[in-house]
Amino acid sequence: MNTKLVFKLNGYILLFDAIAMLLPGIVALIYGESSGYAFIPAILISLIMGIPLILLKPKNKAFFAREGLVTVAIAWIMMSIVGALPFFFSKEIPNFVDCIFETASGFTTTGATILNNVEALSNCMLFWRSFTHWIGGMGVLMFVMAIAPLAGGNNMQLIRAESSGPQVEKILPKASLNSMLLYGLYIGLTVLQFVFLLFGGMPVFDAITTAVATAGTGGFGIKNTSLAGYSPYIQGVVTVFMILFAVNFNMYFLIVARRFKTVFKNQELRLFFTIVFVAIVLITLNISGMFDSILSALHHAAFTVASIISTTGFATVDFNLWPEFSKIILVILMFIGGCAGSTGGGIKVSRILILLKALKREFVSMIHPKSVKTITINGRKLDDESVRRVYAYIICFVAVFFVSLLIVSLDKFNFETNVTAIVATLNNIGPGFATVGPMGNFADFSILSKIVLTINMICGRLELFPILILLMPHTWKRN
Amino acid sequence: MNTKLVFKLNGYILLFDAIAMLLPGIVALIYGESSGYAFIPAILISLIMGIPLILLKPKNKAFFAREGLVTVAIAWIMMSIVGALPFFFSKEIPNFVDCIFETASGFTTTGATILNNVEALSNCMLFWRSFTHWIGGMGVLMFVMAIAPLAGGNNMQLIRAESSGPQVEKILPKASLNSMLLYGLYIGLTVLQFVFLLFGGMPVFDAITTAVATAGTGGFGIKNTSLAGYSPYIQGVVTVFMILFAVNFNMYFLIVARRFKTVFKNQELRLFFTIVFVAIVLITLNISGMFDSILSALHHAAFTVASIISTTGFATVDFNLWPEFSKIILVILMFIGGCAGSTGGGIKVSRILILLKALKREFVSMIHPKSVKTITINGRKLDDESVRRVYAYIICFVAVFFVSLLIVSLDKFNFETNVTAIVATLNNIGPGFATVGPMGNFADFSILSKIVLTINMICGRLELFPILILLMPHTWKRN
Repeated sequence: MNTKLVFKLNGYILLFDAIAMLLPGIVALIYGESSGYAFIPAILISLIMGIPLILLKPKNKAFFAREGLVTVAIAWIMMSIVGALPFFFSKEIPNFVDCIFETASGFTTTGATILNNVEALSNCMLFWRSFTHWIGGMGVLMFVMAIAPLAGGNNMQLIRAESSGPQVEKILPKASLNSMLLYGLYIGLTVLQFVFLLFGGMPVFDAITTAVATAGTGGFGIKNTSLAGYSPYIQGVVTVFMILFAVNFNMYFLIVARRFKTVFKNQELRLFFTIVFVAIVLITLNISGMFDSILSALHHAAFTVASIISTTGFATVDFNLWPEFSKIILVILMFIGGCAGSTGGGIKVSRILILLKALKREFVSMIHPKSVKTITINGRKLDDESVRRVYAYIICFVAVFFVSLLIVSLDKFNFETNVTAIVATLNNIGPGFATVGPMGNFADFSILSKIVLTINMICGRLELFPILILLMPHTWKRN
Repeated sequence: MNTKLVFKLNGYILLFDAIAMLLPGIVALIYGESSGYAFIPAILISLIMGIPLILLKPKNKAFFAREGLVTVAIAWIMMSIVGALPFFFSKEIPNFVDCIFETASGFTTTGATILNNVEALSNCMLFWRSFTHWIGGMGVLMFVMAIAPLAGGNNMQLIRAESSGPQVEKILPKASLNSMLLYGLYIGLTVLQFVFLLFGGMPVFDAITTAVATAGTGGFGIKNTSLAGYSPYIQGVVTVFMILFAVNFNMYFLIVARRFKTVFKNQELRLFFTIVFVAIVLITLNISGMFDSILSALHHAAFTVASIISTTGFATVDFNLWPEFSKIILVILMFIGGCAGSTGGGIKVSRILILLKALKREFVSMIHPKSVKTITINGRKLDDESVRRVYAYIICFVAVFFVSLLIVSLDKFNFETNVTAIVATLNNIGPGFATVGPMGNFADFSILSKIVLTINMICGRLELFPILILLMPHTWKRN
């Protein structure tokens, strides 16, 4: 393990953190909020910790998959702790574990909250909270690599460890250019949504926080009722953008490059929109009796489906009160999540696609034992290792799920709360059902459960392997 | 597809069914019960359907994996329907879907019931109900193959499709001898338990039905309170035998052959007993406050752990009232299930073992991409296909789970009932929690849900693939 290089890279992450915290500081200045002072010690601590790390001189540049995974795991844990400092120093969230929960929930774009009353926070804290979604959505190492490719020729090891989906494809050959392109698309779409929201008469502050929280598919709202209080137009804009941010960003590059046919034929995209369509139709029919008109039911069904499959977690109604059938559809969507290469969480549509194809191959080989069939995605052959890794991913997912569920069940909550709390954090959704439903929160969990759920959120965002590799003794053995 | 041979084999199954139904007929004679007449038309229908099938003359003897899987799938569906006839004709269970549910629950050794009052059944029906567990536990085709090896040199295709676990190993080279050996051990252990139960003063009828239901790890009781009304000694005997029947029967052969070292070193067995031990300790500590003494807590914890991991489903207390922590442990045990080559259901300990080893290999390959590591179980190399099939099994399991959950959620029940109803039927346990808890039943589900749950039970008992292969259009294509 090239420990020095791992720590040096984390020094840059701390530097990035310090710079990022300047933005909510500016918000505090604009609104004249004294809470803004809390960002000063937080920034100083980041710099005091970060600068010595940056000055480390690694003896060699050896940087392999292992280093990439460990760097990313440490970076995200550290970000969640350092990013929590402003909440703690300002005393707006008194308990430090709660501060870390809220920050990890932000960076991992989960959007689960321990706050009973979100509206009691100052604007600068609300901004920081929503802005963590935006930072975490596309990835911090992705950003750092875009402006300073520090890991030599092995930047892709870092980007792979942080990006979502089973296979990370580069559109542009150079990793740093690739990162810049993705960030460009990300900023462009965020600004576009902001403009659409302003156009609907949303206040500037609300529009900024909503746009960044949608872009990261995070889901922190600045109101206790999430998006229920806004106009149908605003809810509609958010519906569309939640879907857009759950799509593989490579698609937008292809659209800009006018390669429409390639986009249209993309199997993941087709499956994604099929799932969205079927889910909206089924839920609309199931909940139609609860609304004045079928159009109103459709509006809320579409918003909720977009919110859940994109793993954003915004709400326009308390879908915890919907019939069990609709709720189970939502639970299934929670597991599926967005497309690979999007800011969405969950298992990812491309993994579902690979699993479906792998199962088909398995069944055919059971019927015709001598048949040899390769799996292709978008016409390209998928190697056995990729398939195996998707399988392993699901098994890890199930294992982490049950271990977490066991620990959280020590609390006083019921089966539905416990199960959906894990589903909602591990898939980076935010709200679950019952106590942790869209109008509820995670405040009453024990410290132990909050720590477990925080680990779940980070595990989910980094797609399990980095955190599990970090915790394996084997990782730390000498070669 | 060699359809004629598939149907011919199913003819023998019907003949077997007819013979099996003579036994409850005898019970009816002993107790002078008029319900016994219901077995006469049931036996006649089996014969009228079965004999023409037996007389079929297949043009060729081609019999491959596909034929094996389809034969087993059809056999088990047919058995569940034909075996349901006595309940229906006697009017002791008025609704035919309920009759099929109860019979499938019997043959698949699930033990889930739609009866509100079990004790209202006549003795011959109670006997038939419990006896279906015994038939289904070791397998019907296994039995038919033992006395009449009909599928030529390909009997193993049938036995594999019906047996439990990822790999079916033969101890004896000849399939029919192997089946006879396993049935011998099965009968021996059942009789042994019967004697132990009699020794504790259990009435003969109770001892017979309890012994056969334990042997199949089924769990149908003849009392509304399951085994709560019997003495601690009887409960203790059942605890031990539930564990014994969840162990790979090859172990008993090895013990008889005095190969103790091989048994002791068996990795599945070690993992199984480790899980049992840890679960008992954790639950005992968790529920100790609910009982007079820690010994009493240990007694009920041990019984319940044995009942659930063996997928029997007997109860001595209403464990639905236990704390969430204990209930989640039980849910995890429900998924794990017994050892391969036992009568227990669930995913099987050997699959869990293979998955753990596969994950370890995956992590090592992530850290050291060039490492090549094979997976060994009990010192023998496991080929890639076996590992892949275990992975595929889990994915199928999850898929069937969610599809079933979605349909069942159309009913009026809550999340806990719906989820555990699927877990309990798909893993062949019997009771779940809430409405379907150990003191509850499945009576109030809709017809549609009962059909889905019945399919779940058969899917679970046959380990998914035969039923899924049966339903695939590809299976029925000409070569």
